[in-house]
Amino acid sequence: MYERTHIRRIEGYEPGLQPDGDAIKLNTNENPFPPSPRVMARLAHVLPIMLQRYPDPLAMAFRLVAARVHGLVPDQIVATNGGDELLRLALATFVDPDRPVGIVSPGYGLYSVLAALHRAPLSEVPLTETWQLPERTASRWNTDGAQLAFLTNPHAPSGALFPMMAIERLAASFQGVLVIDEAYVDFVDPAMGYDTTKLIARYPNLLLLRTLSKGYSLAGLRLGYGLGDESLIRPILSKTKDSYNVDAIAQLLGASALDDQAHARVCWEVVRRERDMLSRDLQDLGFDVAPSQTNFLLVSVPAHGKRDEARELYGRLVERKIYVRWFDTARLRNKLRITIGTPEENATLVRVLRQIALGSSDSAVCSDRSDE
Amino acid sequence: MYERTHIRRIEGYEPGLQPDGDAIKLNTNENPFPPSPRVMARLAHVLPIMLQRYPDPLAMAFRLVAARVHGLVPDQIVATNGGDELLRLALATFVDPDRPVGIVSPGYGLYSVLAALHRAPLSEVPLTETWQLPERTASRWNTDGAQLAFLTNPHAPSGALFPMMAIERLAASFQGVLVIDEAYVDFVDPAMGYDTTKLIARYPNLLLLRTLSKGYSLAGLRLGYGLGDESLIRPILSKTKDSYNVDAIAQLLGASALDDQAHARVCWEVVRRERDMLSRDLQDLGFDVAPSQTNFLLVSVPAHGKRDEARELYGRLVERKIYVRWFDTARLRNKLRITIGTPEENATLVRVLRQIALGSSDSAVCSDRSDE
Repeated sequence: MYERTHIRRIEGYEPGLQPDGDAIKLNTNENPFPPSPRVMARLAHVLPIMLQRYPDPLAMAFRLVAARVHGLVPDQIVATNGGDELLRLALATFVDPDRPVGIVSPGYGLYSVLAALHRAPLSEVPLTETWQLPERTASRWNTDGAQLAFLTNPHAPSGALFPMMAIERLAASFQGVLVIDEAYVDFVDPAMGYDTTKLIARYPNLLLLRTLSKGYSLAGLRLGYGLGDESLIRPILSKTKDSYNVDAIAQLLGASALDDQAHARVCWEVVRRERDMLSRDLQDLGFDVAPSQTNFLLVSVPAHGKRDEARELYGRLVERKIYVRWFDTARLRNKLRITIGTPEENATLVRVLRQIALGSSDSAVCSDRSDE
Repeated sequence: MYERTHIRRIEGYEPGLQPDGDAIKLNTNENPFPPSPRVMARLAHVLPIMLQRYPDPLAMAFRLVAARVHGLVPDQIVATNGGDELLRLALATFVDPDRPVGIVSPGYGLYSVLAALHRAPLSEVPLTETWQLPERTASRWNTDGAQLAFLTNPHAPSGALFPMMAIERLAASFQGVLVIDEAYVDFVDPAMGYDTTKLIARYPNLLLLRTLSKGYSLAGLRLGYGLGDESLIRPILSKTKDSYNVDAIAQLLGASALDDQAHARVCWEVVRRERDMLSRDLQDLGFDVAPSQTNFLLVSVPAHGKRDEARELYGRLVERKIYVRWFDTARLRNKLRITIGTPEENATLVRVLRQIALGSSDSAVCSDRSDE
């Protein structure tokens, strides 16, 4: 009755399931390892007065650490309540209602929900068969009059990395603000030499999103940040973000986590190793696995003449308390997105998938859980 | 260059100063006492896995506690990243751009900043000389076509409480969503019998804002919540709020704080006692003090024939490391807003004010700090 007609027409974003208890959770791309021990040590030293007082509205201590880590200055950095807040703030700051927002498809479902809430139509470019960026991407966005575009890189849900050259070309030819959502960037093989922070000085329309949710194992803390030219950061910092958008504990713990690059790098390396191993194991089981530079794999489920093979497999994994992600869209319906877990979790997943494969003509096998 | 023309024209909200070190901080209405010991105990039991995983997007455990405390159901409650986020979400959910938002003046400066960001003009009703709500408030908002109105109660910066009957009349006659910002409600004398949660069942346009920043000493944690009819809460919960808007630690600690009503009530009672005492002391010093049901006092500074007496006094207090709030607007320019501090802080303030008064013809007195 009081809800805006515009809002009534929108369907909200549906976050992935958060199952309780002893489930194996490979559905929302969290880091399988705990955060740096320094984070927990810092937590033990939080004083009552830090909770009692308002936090620093500008999160300066955190931004100083981020500036050092990325070789930038604090004026090129804004801290946000998770990366998701930066996505919303980018729309609020750079997109006039009714002006289009560029995206690629498939992509992170939240982009289109946030655009709809902002009453911005979409300029949607489908990725190629092999999840590459079509040549005409920027020109399509420009023709549609997009003031801003969102691109996840490395990409979700495919796992593909668009090379730095492709990002640079996009930034050079796109006329609006190019938000590169680098939520998964920490898992990119360092040998790829991917580092878009170097492009900031040359492209004043480039806004990079980073988050501590994945690479630093702090999804529960809600801390992300934006990197970009001062002219992009300033209006977010001084106008469009809520005054005290990042709480005192997130500022403290986030700085400790970011400061412990040594710990983080070891975690990322283990995730990469596990990613390669799981990918091989799944291929051995007959799955088609897309090359991934993230902490998840997009896996095509062989059809065996059935239509709903992927959804069925998803359901059988849930029966075994293994949660992965299945998306009900044309290009993803025959696929599962599987987060890289701990070595033990990945091994269990492979074992269970093997059992399911062996027993695929024997419907009783899934009720046999004695080996778990 | 990429900033929207609309945003470029707006001035951001200016939060109160957060001075470092040993200053006496009576400028941003924080609670002078630490949070419940249960909060700190709960903090000591935060596990790495709670940080590693995404938090509950619906903050159900917290909402269950809030529901019990207020005699409501969780569907009537939404948790937000501080009360400020609820203000923004109320605009996003209920106000079409270019439709006016009702406010009273003077008032919380953030209302007009958020309205400007939302591109909503203001329908502004000045309070009476004695900070009362004019009879014509609702009809003025209705005539202007306001879809939503913000009213702080008890009011800031005056400290006045609009009686429950006045709120009920407003809710009944205002045609839009009435947001009663009860940030300071915990400090209302229980003898006043003020409890607007009882009105929720009867007024589906009534949205109450509560925060843990003031009454529960958790300004650093960023946790507020909205109470209202399910039809108001549902679109915020399922659409307009960010998916994971409240972090895991805030959900946990907030539930512990709200659950410890006994601790909170003792704090509130001490603040009320200190409020009465400080008010009398300031009146004895010749200040005119507005009646307050909050944790601050609005104090008129006698002019003594000078124009800038209040600002000057503000500056002399800063020299003594005592921070209060001075607002540069027509109706507030001769006043100071002073947060109720600890008994020691209040006593120091009174002593320093007395020294300044005694030495007002002797400019040397303020440099004599030997007694501090």
